[in-house]
Amino acid sequence: MKKLIKDKENFLADMLDGLKFHEEHIDIIEETVVVRKKKKAEGVAIVSGGGSGHEPAHAGYVAQGMLDAAVCGEVFTSPTPDKVMAAIKHVDNGDGVLLVIKNYAGDVMNFEMAQEMAEAEGHKVASVIVRDDVTIDNEEQRRGVAGTVLVHKYAGYLSELNAPLDQIVEKVEEMMTSLYSIGMAVHPCMVPTTGEYGFDLGEDEMEIGIGIHGEKGIYREKITTVDVIADRLLDELFKHTESSNLILMINGMGATPDSELNIVTKYVMEALGERGKNITKILVGNYMTALDMQGFSLTVVDDDGEVTEAINSPTESKHF
Amino acid sequence: MKKLIKDKENFLADMLDGLKFHEEHIDIIEETVVVRKKKKAEGVAIVSGGGSGHEPAHAGYVAQGMLDAAVCGEVFTSPTPDKVMAAIKHVDNGDGVLLVIKNYAGDVMNFEMAQEMAEAEGHKVASVIVRDDVTIDNEEQRRGVAGTVLVHKYAGYLSELNAPLDQIVEKVEEMMTSLYSIGMAVHPCMVPTTGEYGFDLGEDEMEIGIGIHGEKGIYREKITTVDVIADRLLDELFKHTESSNLILMINGMGATPDSELNIVTKYVMEALGERGKNITKILVGNYMTALDMQGFSLTVVDDDGEVTEAINSPTESKHF
Repeated sequence: MKKLIKDKENFLADMLDGLKFHEEHIDIIEETVVVRKKKKAEGVAIVSGGGSGHEPAHAGYVAQGMLDAAVCGEVFTSPTPDKVMAAIKHVDNGDGVLLVIKNYAGDVMNFEMAQEMAEAEGHKVASVIVRDDVTIDNEEQRRGVAGTVLVHKYAGYLSELNAPLDQIVEKVEEMMTSLYSIGMAVHPCMVPTTGEYGFDLGEDEMEIGIGIHGEKGIYREKITTVDVIADRLLDELFKHTESSNLILMINGMGATPDSELNIVTKYVMEALGERGKNITKILVGNYMTALDMQGFSLTVVDDDGEVTEAINSPTESKHF
Repeated sequence: MKKLIKDKENFLADMLDGLKFHEEHIDIIEETVVVRKKKKAEGVAIVSGGGSGHEPAHAGYVAQGMLDAAVCGEVFTSPTPDKVMAAIKHVDNGDGVLLVIKNYAGDVMNFEMAQEMAEAEGHKVASVIVRDDVTIDNEEQRRGVAGTVLVHKYAGYLSELNAPLDQIVEKVEEMMTSLYSIGMAVHPCMVPTTGEYGFDLGEDEMEIGIGIHGEKGIYREKITTVDVIADRLLDELFKHTESSNLILMINGMGATPDSELNIVTKYVMEALGERGKNITKILVGNYMTALDMQGFSLTVVDDDGEVTEAINSPTESKHF
């Protein structure tokens, strides 16, 4: 298996050890919980996390202006409730804790169990569940993907403004009603713990509607030029939103070279222009990945002014 | 060919068009010369460039505190002298221009030709040639690789301090006497203009001493664990330097996932500790890539105080 690792059993532990060497503002507690060295003295603490393999999500967003803690599971595996509980206890300063959960059965179960445990111990905890992936018809079952990073940023921003917990929940829920993502891949990811590819893909095939855990997509098609691919993804996205003023995130899946992400950007922006869409803010980079998958995802959210302000606000994270 | 492109002939043009959509502080002149919108009113202008395929180098470093212009050639192809000349004319404010050239025959020839042309028109121009890749024995023939980005940062910093051209040249030349890099790959890059891999590599093989243009390495070995690989590369580096206080850059080759770069970081830092080396500053990320090559390179340079200050100084570039 062509992976730059020592031992697949230590993938997560080794990765976090490495991270600490160059992200000077973080600490690791309870082995797999990444927290800010400088604990927030007031304001709602924002906690997220989930399985690993999505780097820089989520540990890379533990920073002033975004997350107070990221609870890291093994590759594509939910963290256990006791670790989420440890995060809550560590970050809670009395103003309450918001859990940002991606919609996967394990994550929802374990984060909500931790929420109950923490509430039983007197912590004020709320949670929001991100379901931005439009490839699944049933809205309740939609997966949380790259849009989650925009939720981190918005929630972190509101917390910096000292908004109370219930108001942050309300605003984030409102923002998420217009948050939509869709992804595609030309190469699947190689999962280090199994030594297997997430799915098989022919030399001339691409996959539309992929997930971030190596899940295959809903359409398998012959690979075509990026302008056609861009249109194809935008067609899917705009089945769900008619908004004209949008924030756009173009997210690399982990092994997509910068050059290609920029070429994607050109054709996505041109196609949006032809559709009469006004992009008030654009983010391009690797935000929520699937190990070494090659491909990209598009995320849009309505620009309601405050969300754009949040996205533009400073953060200590070098990944946003 | 599995590339997110429209047309291989327009790779560079499309990439720069895309870049402009999200790097708001840049402009493109003469089709392939990336410059700062806000031209520097005083201080030496720093110009670099070369073939494309190394993103975010060099266009991503056109920013306050680093480069004033990046002259972009087609993929792995040197830009022509007239484009370098256009860059010099655009950025020169009377305080002179420094060309930072990676040591490849085409780049050296074309940049030096432009320098002569510009001098003939009255511009004060100097150049430095980066030769940090230790894999080639003959020092004169050593290639310029990831260390070039540290040269951009140091030169940009000195320019911000309003150092005169000859002093910047002298300090950068001094800094480069301790600048050493070496790279490795587990997957070669696919070159979009040819549809070919830079080299072939067996399912259990890795390549030590690769270049950034898909050049194969000097040693082909069975892939092993990352701690052994780290030691192997450090052995090569420390044939050239005995310094104890070092700045370290761990550079992804373009398609290396963040998770693995962090695991690399852990074992490189541990191995450096065992060697009694003190790392005063560490940079981890994709700085100088080879399209979608998977692998990493290590760069070290002596910490002489001012170089560290330069590396830590602010820049508008989001890639440093």
